[in-house]
Amino acid sequence: MKIATLSFEVETERENQMVEMTGRVREAAAGVSQGLATVFITGSTAAIITIEYEPGLVKDFPAMLERVAPKAVGYEHERKWHDGNGRSHVKASLIGPSLSIPIVDGSLVLGEWQQVVLLELDTRPRTRKVVVQVMGEARRT
Amino acid sequence: MKIATLSFEVETERENQMVEMTGRVREAAAGVSQGLATVFITGSTAAIITIEYEPGLVKDFPAMLERVAPKAVGYEHERKWHDGNGRSHVKASLIGPSLSIPIVDGSLVLGEWQQVVLLELDTRPRTRKVVVQVMGEARRT
Amino acid sequence: MKIATLSFEVETERENQMVEMTGRVREAAAGVSQGLATVFITGSTAAIITIEYEPGLVKDFPAMLERVAPKAVGYEHERKWHDGNGRSHVKASLIGPSLSIPIVDGSLVLGEWQQVVLLELDTRPRTRKVVVQVMGEARRT
Repeated sequence: MKIATLSFEVETERENQMVEMTGRVREAAAGVSQGLATVFITGSTAAIITIEYEPGLVKDFPAMLERVAPKAVGYEHERKWHDGNGRSHVKASLIGPSLSIPIVDGSLVLGEWQQVVLLELDTRPRTRKVVVQVMGEARRT
Repeated sequence: MKIATLSFEVETERENQMVEMTGRVREAAAGVSQGLATVFITGSTAAIITIEYEPGLVKDFPAMLERVAPKAVGYEHERKWHDGNGRSHVKASLIGPSLSIPIVDGSLVLGEWQQVVLLELDTRPRTRKVVVQVMGEARRT
Repeated sequence: MKIATLSFEVETERENQMVEMTGRVREAAAGVSQGLATVFITGSTAAIITIEYEPGLVKDFPAMLERVAPKAVGYEHERKWHDGNGRSHVKASLIGPSLSIPIVDGSLVLGEWQQVVLLELDTRPRTRKVVVQVMGEARRT
């Protein structure tokens, strides 16, 4: 049984920025033949999703979130803390911070057009910490 | 420590179709006494949910998603790829592809009215691949 | 390899009530040095989220959900079962019942303002059962 954790930081620049990181998750998973990869984003204004990472959906997904949690709506969070990111919090809590992907025969079982993406939801640049943990049978080398 | 993976295909016929698969997840989990079941759908236009699987909610849940990602809204994805399924992608990314269920004393800890369901979100029939992975203490037989 | 399960009940009083339970998840995780904590809520009208647990967002998050699944919309579930909680079900299925948090060096990798919260979505008081399962290397004491 092997448990390995890879943590890395990502610098984001703006709200709704997507950072594709499938390759880094694959790397972390490479040491396991059968098992589970867990991807987790620390913090309460970002999220981990899977998506077909292409220029159209990079716009469509945030546009959907704006319908759910519009900028123009008043947020109690902002009345109290004056940090202007109430919408960021509610969107992040809705999507969630974690993703679980089985590893079978040494590979993540992702579809061909199913990438792992960090979504920045905060209204200012942030340094994000992503944790990828793999657990399972060690791969023979 | 036991790790077992069950993969199966599901043929779907139409957008918003739900395929109940609690029984198949239970079967996969049967070999483990204490541990974790992970259910994962490959692809970027379908999702895994838990829901009380009854005829009312089978209509209500898609109706809620239509409010979030309406057909009538323009999608950049469709402008580029002309496949008419922009809404399918954003809904799938919002819900997510994975579900984690603890196994305790040989059983999934699901509630009585909490079924595991595959939700087809694409606009055409698809062949779906579902992966159920269980990890934990092997059950003595 | 260690697998431990902590189950506990929570009495809720009203729709949209949040119950902070980060401390209880930390306790369950304390016996593992490297591994995974899975938090799961049984039942189909409640959800597990991470959120900055403060009085503003305690109002903002339910307000967002009301936009997605308004009270005033008709639900097929209610026409059939007359239990008045169609919105509770669709919101719970959208958010999801499970959360996965890596444990690194004996601690959950949560951010400082990222709490684990049970969200009651039903329209009446309920007794909720939460399962926290940890799996990983046993911590030396």
